[in-house]
Amino acid sequence: MSTAPLFERVALIGFGLIGGSIARAAREQGLANEIVATARSAKTRARIQELGLVDRVVDSNAEAAKGADLVILCIPVGACGTVAQEIAADLRPDAIVSDVGSVKAAVVRDMAPHLPGSAHFVPAHPVAGTEHSGPDSGFAELFINRWCILTPPEGTDPKAVDRLRAFWAALGAKVEIMTPDHHDLVLAITSHLPHLIAYTIVGTADELGQVTSSEVMKFSAGGFRDFTRIAASDPIMWRDVFLANKDAVLEMLGTFNEDLSKLTRAIRRGDGEALFEHFTRTRAIRRGIVEIGQDSAAPDFGRPHAHLEKKPE
Amino acid sequence: MSTAPLFERVALIGFGLIGGSIARAAREQGLANEIVATARSAKTRARIQELGLVDRVVDSNAEAAKGADLVILCIPVGACGTVAQEIAADLRPDAIVSDVGSVKAAVVRDMAPHLPGSAHFVPAHPVAGTEHSGPDSGFAELFINRWCILTPPEGTDPKAVDRLRAFWAALGAKVEIMTPDHHDLVLAITSHLPHLIAYTIVGTADELGQVTSSEVMKFSAGGFRDFTRIAASDPIMWRDVFLANKDAVLEMLGTFNEDLSKLTRAIRRGDGEALFEHFTRTRAIRRGIVEIGQDSAAPDFGRPHAHLEKKPE
Repeated sequence: MSTAPLFERVALIGFGLIGGSIARAAREQGLANEIVATARSAKTRARIQELGLVDRVVDSNAEAAKGADLVILCIPVGACGTVAQEIAADLRPDAIVSDVGSVKAAVVRDMAPHLPGSAHFVPAHPVAGTEHSGPDSGFAELFINRWCILTPPEGTDPKAVDRLRAFWAALGAKVEIMTPDHHDLVLAITSHLPHLIAYTIVGTADELGQVTSSEVMKFSAGGFRDFTRIAASDPIMWRDVFLANKDAVLEMLGTFNEDLSKLTRAIRRGDGEALFEHFTRTRAIRRGIVEIGQDSAAPDFGRPHAHLEKKPE
Repeated sequence: MSTAPLFERVALIGFGLIGGSIARAAREQGLANEIVATARSAKTRARIQELGLVDRVVDSNAEAAKGADLVILCIPVGACGTVAQEIAADLRPDAIVSDVGSVKAAVVRDMAPHLPGSAHFVPAHPVAGTEHSGPDSGFAELFINRWCILTPPEGTDPKAVDRLRAFWAALGAKVEIMTPDHHDLVLAITSHLPHLIAYTIVGTADELGQVTSSEVMKFSAGGFRDFTRIAASDPIMWRDVFLANKDAVLEMLGTFNEDLSKLTRAIRRGDGEALFEHFTRTRAIRRGIVEIGQDSAAPDFGRPHAHLEKKPE
């Protein structure tokens, strides 16, 4: 059965891990007649051209948006307001404008005032990623079985929301709708605070007097290396996330600090029972995450293991 | 070329992830004429028998140690003192006695006074593991390219140290020697503090009022799920680690808290430059760990990704 693509022209503004993964998956799935992309730096634009993943690479955001029925900003959240301003005049009257930012209230606040009333603004956040960034880092499977959260402002045309939902579903994602504020609270605990903690401890390990960096790296398989993955994420993206979701992050951080003080006290007092009780409770959450398919059940995340040659006889 | 096994009889006291992995690898590599194992619970002993990974399963620690030229305690560090007492009278005069505990000063303090002068005490810590535990969780490849740290007390016979070094090398590990105190500092930052932080944040997420546990699990791919892996580690083992390495853990925690306060202040003040500078620095450590082969370069730890069926035409 031959079906028409969901969109005539999809414009991707920004081509890092997320933009590049959308391009690959949308092309594989035939979701648009034409995919147009742009990026801020000439070097990235040249690389997109070389990769041959889109139909057309253009030099400006306005040019990319022109004539597209779906425009997705795949850029750090701090840049969304400016880009909305740049593309506003060139948007098709019925265009759906979306983004992929990890913070939603700030994006709505920054973008909505610039967009014409004729466009449909449907902010989105695919909860997926890796520690890699740049135009080469994307892959078509990134969104499969991951959630994409849409936060349409009140009064958004339900048809526009449905079209964007169908787009993300075709990329393999499960779609959920929330308010921007609730999104920002949920992500503060499931993503932003974990990144802040990981960035902190990796920095701490790097600056110790008594233990060298070389020792930290050598013996990292005891747990530390798990933290280094997310502490290797894109610095600009994450700077913007913390600036844009300050209140929710500080709130979660307050609760985390209270809990850390409680465990610290248990260690100081030698209260083995309190530690055991806590450590038993946290196992259940891991089980839940594996059960609903949000992580691998394979030990060690399924990291590859080498093989030992059998000892010669 | 046929070579004699390194040991006549290896006794494994305890058969969780580490004990079970040693048994599997030592058998594959032919490192002992006989492998004897025991475990505290009758249920585990029955399971070891069923698995058929060792030559003999015995009911008591003393029985296991009797006649063995290598005895390895593969049990939580809090139990090492008692077991040393139980096996002391039955040790062969030339036996090497070792362990696999994640803390070394406390193990030396608890075990050394009980062991006869004729035995060679060479404490060890293989820096390797997964979040799984129990007799079924082990695998022969666990130690390949991981470090095993030996902390022999001053005056230990170098020949005994060399034999244990050869044993761990044959299991695939790289061997390093340090003092127990330095080991405990290094592991406090590379393993114990990361576990404490992970246990804390997973507990925090589980008890929030504004975000449900179900939301935490669903949207965990944004970073949180990385923490749940180590927060699913064996609760008894980890209770003992924190009780036994209290001072070093509290010291590292103090530094971590200072660093977290610095980043928190940067967020509160909207100091993007400080955040960007910190987040850039931490990327380098990840690169170092991947370069020296202590983690996978594959994005997302090489977690398996599903495939999308191509859309039907």
